[in-house]
Amino acid sequence: MARPGTVAGKTVGDVGEFGLIDIIKEIVPVSDPRLVVGIGDDSAALRQSAGLLMLSTCDIQVEGRHFRREHISARQLGRRSAAINLSDIAAMGGRPLYALVSLALPRETLVSWVQDLYEGLAEETAEVGSAVIGGNLSGASEGIVIDITFLGEVEEGRMLRRSGARPGDAVLVTGAVGASTVGRLALERGLDRARPDVAYVVAAHLTPTPRVREGAVIAASRRATAMIDVSDGLAGDIGHICEASNAGVRLFAGRVPMDPQTVAVAQGLGIDPLHAALHGGEDYELLFTCPPEDAEAVSQEVRKETGTPVTEIGVMTEGPQRTLALPDGGEQQLTAGGWDHFVGANERS
Amino acid sequence: MARPGTVAGKTVGDVGEFGLIDIIKEIVPVSDPRLVVGIGDDSAALRQSAGLLMLSTCDIQVEGRHFRREHISARQLGRRSAAINLSDIAAMGGRPLYALVSLALPRETLVSWVQDLYEGLAEETAEVGSAVIGGNLSGASEGIVIDITFLGEVEEGRMLRRSGARPGDAVLVTGAVGASTVGRLALERGLDRARPDVAYVVAAHLTPTPRVREGAVIAASRRATAMIDVSDGLAGDIGHICEASNAGVRLFAGRVPMDPQTVAVAQGLGIDPLHAALHGGEDYELLFTCPPEDAEAVSQEVRKETGTPVTEIGVMTEGPQRTLALPDGGEQQLTAGGWDHFVGANERS
Repeated sequence: MARPGTVAGKTVGDVGEFGLIDIIKEIVPVSDPRLVVGIGDDSAALRQSAGLLMLSTCDIQVEGRHFRREHISARQLGRRSAAINLSDIAAMGGRPLYALVSLALPRETLVSWVQDLYEGLAEETAEVGSAVIGGNLSGASEGIVIDITFLGEVEEGRMLRRSGARPGDAVLVTGAVGASTVGRLALERGLDRARPDVAYVVAAHLTPTPRVREGAVIAASRRATAMIDVSDGLAGDIGHICEASNAGVRLFAGRVPMDPQTVAVAQGLGIDPLHAALHGGEDYELLFTCPPEDAEAVSQEVRKETGTPVTEIGVMTEGPQRTLALPDGGEQQLTAGGWDHFVGANERS
Repeated sequence: MARPGTVAGKTVGDVGEFGLIDIIKEIVPVSDPRLVVGIGDDSAALRQSAGLLMLSTCDIQVEGRHFRREHISARQLGRRSAAINLSDIAAMGGRPLYALVSLALPRETLVSWVQDLYEGLAEETAEVGSAVIGGNLSGASEGIVIDITFLGEVEEGRMLRRSGARPGDAVLVTGAVGASTVGRLALERGLDRARPDVAYVVAAHLTPTPRVREGAVIAASRRATAMIDVSDGLAGDIGHICEASNAGVRLFAGRVPMDPQTVAVAQGLGIDPLHAALHGGEDYELLFTCPPEDAEAVSQEVRKETGTPVTEIGVMTEGPQRTLALPDGGEQQLTAGGWDHFVGANERS
């Protein structure tokens, strides 16, 4: 995208809030008859559609806590910030519509950095037919903060919640898990990002792919009973389904899908890839349940429509036990122990 | 509100993300047939209404930049954070519906502080018939960050934008302006908050009243042509209307409504109260335009329905000049010079 040469080297303090709004408007223009007011008024305004549910979700990313500028480019951060929210819309079976972006920026932030961020946001949202329609710009004393609210919609009868799983239902997951956590650890320990397997897991961490089309196919199949995205780790997220559905679960350790790159890098780091998959999180795959007789058909449908594999990894039970069946025939308790945002990674059990 | 004694002295690091969600759920319970999914799933979901526009707006508050915990209590901060967003819905003539709250908290934050914040949020949103329906909790490395997205709605024909003002229209403002900035300066300079006039302006700064009912009356009158809320200062905000409406303006300095407390505290601080009103901002009053022959009727209607006075302070012109007419008959240029979030208060022209 051509950029006005005048911003080279300039900071947000130089161009000011309103100068920055003008620059952002050029990156995220929206023309959609449904959107009556976009960027540049007190609120955005869109026409409502009778019979549909409006979905809304938000997620905050704080510099130093959720990202470090030495590890992630502005464009990647834009993609990632959008993707995390898109994943929450996907997990309800919804279609993403519009994003509102709240940005708090130290005044020495380069305008070009903000442009890159918005280009990443524009790319990621456009890939699934959505767009940035508004937001808020503000100063920050220390690090950058990005908070995105995403609006989406879904037919009421198709929406998938965490609470519909029934004992006997199969537990399925899209794609593969564990890569994001292994990628984060690879970054933190400074592994060589030129190595293909390291590059693979680092990319899985920095720019996860939200399963928007997969979620829509699963919802449209009308076979699924509950769904969630894998943000806290398989163990924690299936735990959320168990709690909301008042059921238990039995996961099969040997069936948890992991990419060879994830396994190789994890082993090099001396960590158990299965532990990363169960307790790491941030994979943004979709974890869902359906009657066992429908599991094969839904899996086929998702693969046919999107190319994404789906794996059956467990079964819902009467509960309340949550167990992990090991390949050697043993069984252990599946502790929730997902990522808890107020407990550091090193303090997790 | 009765609180579980078990949280006394505990931090968010002690109870964890999911413990905190359970505590918050008790403070902001919502039962509304329109809200299909509230707190506790991947997204919130609400039924849409055909023929209405969905409004959305967001605003971020960063500790150390927008607030200091020594100056504002958690409950006040909750009220203020909600009020700022409510004001943006009001400025479109809309009815506020639901808030999504993104919170980033250092792990040593007291749970009781978060409870107080949510009680403030619950109070402020309930006063105008709205509620918190979801959000996101996260850790923070340094200070607290609160980002709120508010959803509202309005009939398409009633919505007021910044862009409808016409030359000759009267410019009106609700309530009084300048108090918030004078209150902020009184706090920063450590004036005695026991003094009634200081207490008044400090309260105006910490817990502004969003003009939701006033905005609805103005929109329902169908006489107004443009509206905005006073967040950047009268000069900056009328400037936004001028730009969007492609017009100029002439404001009458002698008519700008200011409370006697604002004038007294400003004079004690050695600052010009008119300057605070024009360039300070954060008053969250509504600034709007209407044909001159309707000005009196709209003002009366707002006062009758809400008790809030409305003052005619200027006239829109062909432009592009924006001028300030002084009581002595002189005239000066009305410089935009509102609060720019990337430029410190001391650096403003």
